[in-house]
Amino acid sequence: MDAYGNIDAYWRAANYLSVGQIYLMDNPLLTEPLSPEHVKPRLLGHWGTTPGLNFCFAHLNRIIRERGQDMIYIAGPGHGGPAAVAHAWLEGTYTERYPHVTQDAEGMRRLFRQFSFPGGIPSHVAPETPGSIHEGGELGYALSHAYGAAFDNPSLVVACVVGDGEAETGPLATGWHSNKFLNRDTDGVVLPILHLNGYKIANPAVLARIPEDELVKLFEGYGYRPHIVAGQEPAEMHELMAETLDTVFEQMADRGPLPMIILRTPKGWTGPREVDGLPVEGTWRAHQVPLTDVRNRPDRLEALEEWMRSYRPEELFDVDGRPVEIITRTVPDGPLRMSASPHANGGELLRPLVLPDFRDYAVEVKAPASASSEPTRVLGAFLRDVIAANPANFRLLGPDETASNRLSAVFEATDKEWEAALLPTDENLGPRGRVMEVLSEHQCQGWLEGYLLTGRHGLFNCYEAFIHIVDAMFNQHAKWLESSRKIPWRRPVASLNYLLSSHVWRQDHNGFSHQDPGFLDVVLNKKAEVVRVYLPPDANTLLSVADHCLRSRDYVNVVVAGKQPVLDLMSMDEAVVHCTRGLGILEWASTDAGAEPDVVLGCAGDVPTLETLAAAALLREHLPELRIRVINVVDLMRLQPASEHPHGMSDAEFDALFTTDKPIIFNFHGYPWLIHRLTYRRTGHDNLHVRGYKEEGTTTTPFDMAMLNDIDRFHLVMDVIDRVPGLGGRTAHLRQRMADARLRARAYTREFGEDPAEIRDWTWPY
Amino acid sequence: MDAYGNIDAYWRAANYLSVGQIYLMDNPLLTEPLSPEHVKPRLLGHWGTTPGLNFCFAHLNRIIRERGQDMIYIAGPGHGGPAAVAHAWLEGTYTERYPHVTQDAEGMRRLFRQFSFPGGIPSHVAPETPGSIHEGGELGYALSHAYGAAFDNPSLVVACVVGDGEAETGPLATGWHSNKFLNRDTDGVVLPILHLNGYKIANPAVLARIPEDELVKLFEGYGYRPHIVAGQEPAEMHELMAETLDTVFEQMADRGPLPMIILRTPKGWTGPREVDGLPVEGTWRAHQVPLTDVRNRPDRLEALEEWMRSYRPEELFDVDGRPVEIITRTVPDGPLRMSASPHANGGELLRPLVLPDFRDYAVEVKAPASASSEPTRVLGAFLRDVIAANPANFRLLGPDETASNRLSAVFEATDKEWEAALLPTDENLGPRGRVMEVLSEHQCQGWLEGYLLTGRHGLFNCYEAFIHIVDAMFNQHAKWLESSRKIPWRRPVASLNYLLSSHVWRQDHNGFSHQDPGFLDVVLNKKAEVVRVYLPPDANTLLSVADHCLRSRDYVNVVVAGKQPVLDLMSMDEAVVHCTRGLGILEWASTDAGAEPDVVLGCAGDVPTLETLAAAALLREHLPELRIRVINVVDLMRLQPASEHPHGMSDAEFDALFTTDKPIIFNFHGYPWLIHRLTYRRTGHDNLHVRGYKEEGTTTTPFDMAMLNDIDRFHLVMDVIDRVPGLGGRTAHLRQRMADARLRARAYTREFGEDPAEIRDWTWPY
Repeated sequence: MDAYGNIDAYWRAANYLSVGQIYLMDNPLLTEPLSPEHVKPRLLGHWGTTPGLNFCFAHLNRIIRERGQDMIYIAGPGHGGPAAVAHAWLEGTYTERYPHVTQDAEGMRRLFRQFSFPGGIPSHVAPETPGSIHEGGELGYALSHAYGAAFDNPSLVVACVVGDGEAETGPLATGWHSNKFLNRDTDGVVLPILHLNGYKIANPAVLARIPEDELVKLFEGYGYRPHIVAGQEPAEMHELMAETLDTVFEQMADRGPLPMIILRTPKGWTGPREVDGLPVEGTWRAHQVPLTDVRNRPDRLEALEEWMRSYRPEELFDVDGRPVEIITRTVPDGPLRMSASPHANGGELLRPLVLPDFRDYAVEVKAPASASSEPTRVLGAFLRDVIAANPANFRLLGPDETASNRLSAVFEATDKEWEAALLPTDENLGPRGRVMEVLSEHQCQGWLEGYLLTGRHGLFNCYEAFIHIVDAMFNQHAKWLESSRKIPWRRPVASLNYLLSSHVWRQDHNGFSHQDPGFLDVVLNKKAEVVRVYLPPDANTLLSVADHCLRSRDYVNVVVAGKQPVLDLMSMDEAVVHCTRGLGILEWASTDAGAEPDVVLGCAGDVPTLETLAAAALLREHLPELRIRVINVVDLMRLQPASEHPHGMSDAEFDALFTTDKPIIFNFHGYPWLIHRLTYRRTGHDNLHVRGYKEEGTTTTPFDMAMLNDIDRFHLVMDVIDRVPGLGGRTAHLRQRMADARLRARAYTREFGEDPAEIRDWTWPY
Repeated sequence: MDAYGNIDAYWRAANYLSVGQIYLMDNPLLTEPLSPEHVKPRLLGHWGTTPGLNFCFAHLNRIIRERGQDMIYIAGPGHGGPAAVAHAWLEGTYTERYPHVTQDAEGMRRLFRQFSFPGGIPSHVAPETPGSIHEGGELGYALSHAYGAAFDNPSLVVACVVGDGEAETGPLATGWHSNKFLNRDTDGVVLPILHLNGYKIANPAVLARIPEDELVKLFEGYGYRPHIVAGQEPAEMHELMAETLDTVFEQMADRGPLPMIILRTPKGWTGPREVDGLPVEGTWRAHQVPLTDVRNRPDRLEALEEWMRSYRPEELFDVDGRPVEIITRTVPDGPLRMSASPHANGGELLRPLVLPDFRDYAVEVKAPASASSEPTRVLGAFLRDVIAANPANFRLLGPDETASNRLSAVFEATDKEWEAALLPTDENLGPRGRVMEVLSEHQCQGWLEGYLLTGRHGLFNCYEAFIHIVDAMFNQHAKWLESSRKIPWRRPVASLNYLLSSHVWRQDHNGFSHQDPGFLDVVLNKKAEVVRVYLPPDANTLLSVADHCLRSRDYVNVVVAGKQPVLDLMSMDEAVVHCTRGLGILEWASTDAGAEPDVVLGCAGDVPTLETLAAAALLREHLPELRIRVINVVDLMRLQPASEHPHGMSDAEFDALFTTDKPIIFNFHGYPWLIHRLTYRRTGHDNLHVRGYKEEGTTTTPFDMAMLNDIDRFHLVMDVIDRVPGLGGRTAHLRQRMADARLRARAYTREFGEDPAEIRDWTWPY
C-alpha cells in the first residue's frame, strides 16, 4: 500500500464524496454523529459502478502526472455521476466552474446537497459535469464517443470505462471495431477499460459470466491486447492496476494491437457487505442505493455512518474540509486535470472552418426549371474543398453511402479512412482518410458526436429511412445541447449536420423498407432552440444551406436533399435570397401577378416541388384565368409561429404569403401531419390541405411512387379543382382528364417498366 | 463435382433464375439470342450477395433431405431477394402461393418480369417472399430474428446467413451473444453462416480484412466453434461445404459450443469477372447490377447472354421450362422445404394464448381516487399466470428492467433465462426461464419479432425514453405487418406488444436523459391499420388493456403505464366499459351534471390524469358554479376521425363529448402537438389547448416535473381561468393563489428535497 498510499487516499476521498452526495444534506465531514435530518428524504443515485470509476480515475491521474499525458475520461456507466463530480471537486475544477461550491466544508455540504436534489444537479454524468462529453443514461455509445474524441488529436489519450451492462448493447459491441479506423500517427489513442463488476440493474452481465479464455479471445479477436486486473483487496489491486497501466502506456507506443484493460471488481466495492443478512457488495443489490430507509431505521443510519467513516475522512480532509496535501499532490496541473481538459469543453478549442465560397460551385441557371442537376453531386465538389481546406478539423461520415449519395467528388481530395488490410483493387481507401465509412449508423453518429464535442466539425450523410437507427442518439445529443446552452462555461460547439439523401421518393431500387421520412417528426420534438430542418429543392439552394449549416453552432441541422437529377430552379443569387428568407413565392411559376390568388400551391422537398411545378404548368395551360401562387419552403421552421421557434414567421407574414381564406394545397416531402402540426395556429389552417408520404410504396418507378401517395401533378390539379370554390362544375372534364392521365401513366409503367418519357423529361414549358 | 453434381445443378439453376430476375422481361430460357427488348429498361437488384445465398440454400437442402431436418432460412443480406424467390420457385412453393407464376417457361417469364418491376414484387426479401420472416433492407437483425425463431422450437434449426456488411452493425455485433440465452433442450439451434464476400456497397467489410486468427478468436470469444469454408472453385467449394455441414450438424448434438460457419467467397461469384477492363467479380463493383446499360451496348448484351449461358440452362430446365429431375430430386418434401415452412408463416402455427380472467386480478375500488396501486405490479400477477398457463408459447422481454418496472410477480412462475455461469447468490435466474433480459433493446425487439413471426406471443417491457433505440426496428416490423395484411397466404400473427413503464413523468432518479415520450409520434406515422396506443390511467384499466392486446393479431400495441403508485379510478366493471369505449366522462369528477359544460378537461396518461383530477377538485372547491366535464382517454386513436383510423370517433361523437365551442384543456402524457395532430379536423379544435411534455426536466421530484412542464393542477386551474370567457376578472384572486401555490411547492421541494405531503398524498376529496 505504501507505494500507492496517496492513490488510495485519493480513492477513499472520492468514494467518501460519492457516498456523501447520494445520502447527505448536511454534516458533510461527520463532525457530529449522523442523525436522520442530515440524510436526504429521497435517496437517489447509483453507487454500484462508482468505486470502480473512482479507482480508474485515481490511477490515471498518476499516469498523467508522471508522463504529462493529455487525457480525457469517458465514463460509459455515466449513471455513476457522483464519481465524476467528486473528481472535479477534488481537482478544484468544480469550484472554478461553480464558485459557490467552494473546496471546503460549506462547499462540500453544497456539493452533497445539490446532487439529485430539486434545483440541484442531475444524478448522471451530464453537461453540467466538468470534464465530460458523455451523458450517462442511455447506454452503449462510450467507445464511439471515445474514438470520435481521439480522431485528429494525436497527443490525446481517451480513457474509456465501459460498463459490463452497457457492453451488451449493440452499439458498444460494434464500438470495439473502431480500432480499424484509428490512425496511430495522426489520431490519439483510446484506452478501453472494461469494468466487469458483474451485474446490471438486476441481472448478471454476460461478459462477466463467460469463461475467461473466451473473454480474452473475444478482445483479441476485436484486435486488442487485453490485460486483466482482478481482485478486491485494495492494496493488491492498486499495485496490479499501477503496473498494468505502466505496461499499457508502454504498449501504446509500439505498433502492436492497442492495449485494453479488463477490470474485475465487486459491484459497490467498499460499500456495505450485507444488509439485513443479504449480500450487497458484489451483487446487483449494490446497483443504486445499497442502504435505503436510512432516515427511519437507526440501524441503517448507523451502517451508513460506519460505511462513510470506513474511508477515514479525517485523514483526507482538514478541519476546514479542504483535501489534504497527500490528495492534492496526486492531482495533475491546470488543463491536464481530466475535469478541466479543454477537449471536454470542445468549444474552447473550436476553430471555425475555412470555407471556400459556396457560390463558386453554383450550377448556372439560364431559365428556371429548364435543366437538371444532381444536388448532392454538386455539393460533393464543395465538400471536397472543405475537406482540403480543413485538415484535421472536418470529417465526413456515412454508413457506406458517400458514393451512393453521389458525394464522390470528395475522393479527389481524400480517401476513406481504413487501417485494416489493403488490396491492389481498392479505391479511395487508406490511412488518413477524412471520410469515415462503416456500416453502422451508430458508429457514424457516435464518432461524430465525440468529434464535435471535442471541438471539431463534421457532416453525417445517410439514407433518410435508416437515420431512424440513431433516433435515440439524436435525442440524447439534442438534450445535451439543450442543457449546454444554459451552462455558461460550456462553449458553443459546431452543429451536428445531417444530410439525408436517398430519400423516400427515390427508392426505386429498394422499395418499402427504405421509405420513411419520419426522422423530421422525431427531430421536431426537441427544443426549438436546437433544431433546424432544411429541404432545399435544387442544387444551388443545397449549396447555400450547406454553407449556412457548416457555420452554425450548437444546433442539429437536418438537410434533406436528393441525389437524383432535379430541375435547377434558381440562380445562385436567387438561391441565397430564397434560403435567407427560408421560403418564398416562385413568381415565374405563379399566375397571381402580385394580386390575391385563387389558390396557393405550397411545396417543400425536391420531388414534391417538381410535382407542384408540373401541376402549376398544367393549371396555367388548362385554366389560364386561375390565379395561382406557388410557394416553396426551404426552412421548415419558418412555418411555425414566431412564439414557437426562433425562425418562425409572424402571423402577418404567414397570412400575407398563404392568405387567410384561400385554399392551400401543400405538397410535402414527409408525413403530411407534420405540416399541420407546424401550422395549426395559423388563421388559414382550415383551408390547408397537405399531401405527403402516407406509407404507400414498393419497388417501382419514381412517378408511380408519387401517384401511390397522391403527391403527383395530376392529383394536385384534381385537388385544386376540388377545393377552389366554383371550379367544380366547369372543370369536370379537366378533372377526368387528370384521372385518366394517372391511369395511363400507371399502365405505361406496368407495361414498359419505366415512367413515360414526357413525365421523366418534363421541364417548365416556356 | 460428381458427388455434388446435383447440388451444383441446383445452384446453377438458382443463379440463372437470379440473374434472369434482375435483367430479363422476356426470352427467359434464352431460346432465342438475347436482344435489347428482352432486357428491362431499369436494371435493379443486388447480384453481389446472391450466389452465396444460393450456395448455402442448395447445400442446406441436402441436409434437410438426408436428416429430415426441420429448418428455416434467414437471409441477413435480404437485398439478395432474387435468391429467395428463385428457391421458392424451384421448390414449387412460389407457384403454390402465386398460381399465375407457373413452374414452366411462361411462369419463369413472369417470375423474371415481376421482379423490381412496377406492379411486381420488391427487390428485397419481403413479406411477399415465401419462406421468409426477415425483411431485407435495414440491416443488423438477422441473428436476433434467428434466435427468436429458435426459442421454444426444439426441433428447429434456423440457418442464418449474416452478411459481412451487416456484421458491422451494432445489433448484429451483439446478436452473436444470443447463444447465452438459448437452451439446448427446449430451444432449437441457430446455425450462423457469416458470409465474407469481402465488400459492402462501396467498401471492404471489416471482418473480411482482419487477420484470420483474429477472426477465429473473435467467434471463439463469442462462444462458437467456427468452421471456415473458403475458396471459389465450385467443385472444391461444394465438397468443403458439404463436409463442413456434416461436421456442423454432428456438433450441434454434442454439448460443446454451437458451431458456426465462416463462408469466404468472391462477391458476385460466377458473375462477370471484368467489365470494361475493371475487375467486378470479387469486388464491390459486383454489389448491385454488374453489367449496366445492357439495352444500349451490344457488348454488354453479349456479356449478359454469355454469363447466363455459363450456367448451362439447357441442362437445368426442360424445353417447357420446368426444372429437370436432377434438380427436383434435391428439393425437400412438403413443409420441409424452407420456402414452405409453416414456421416462416407463423400464423399457420399460432395457438391462441390461454388467458386467465383478467378481472380476477382487479384492485378493489370502493370510491374513485381514494386509494393507490402500482399498475404494473398489479399487471405482474396477471402476467405471472399468463406465463404459467402458456409454456413454450409466451415470453416476456426487457432490457434488465422487468423488476424495475415492478413486474416481479412473474418470478413466482418462472426465471430469467440464463445459460451462462450461475452463482449461489443469483435469484430468479436459470435455464428455461420465460423472461428474457439483456441490456440491449435491439436484442429484445429482434428476439420478440422472430418469436412472433414464427407463431408465438410476447410482451416487451421497456423504459419509455429508450424504446426510441428500436424506432427503426419498429418501423420495419410495422411495414412488414402493413404488407402482410395484403398477402392472402400470410396468416395473422400475434401483435407486437410494448409496455412502456418508467415513463417521462416519473424519472425522479434519472432526469432529463430518461425523459422522452416521443415513441408515440413515431408509431403514429405508420398505417392506422396496424398501430394502437393505450394510456390506461390506473391498475384496472391496465389489466383490461393488457388482456385486449394479448388477444389481438397483426397490430403493434403500445401501452404506456406507470410503475409508481397512482390513484385507483375505476372498479373493474367500470374499467372494462371505459376501455371498450376507449374514452369517457369521469362523472364523479365532473360538475356539468349532464348539461353543457363551461369547460372540458381532457386527459390521457396516469400522471396527467391525476393532475387533471386535482385541478377539477380545486375548481369544484373554489368555483363551485363552474360546470366542468372531465374526460379521460385510454385509446388515443379514438381522437382521430373515423376516416383516419379504425378506432376513430365520428365527428358527432367527438362533438357531443368535447363540445364544439367550449374551451378544452387537454393534459397529455406526451408531446402536446400529438393531440393537435389527431384532432385538427374536429370542429372544436380551435378551442383546444394542450399541455404535455415540452422538453423540460431534470432529476427532481414528481410534482416539480409536472410544474416544469405546466401540466400541474395549479397551472391547469390557471389555464381554465384564462380560457373560460368571463372568468378572468372575478377570479384574479384565485389565479394568483394558484401561482403562489406553485411557487410555494417549488420552494418546499428545494428546501426539503421532496414534494409537500398534501400533494404527494392527495386523493379525491369526498
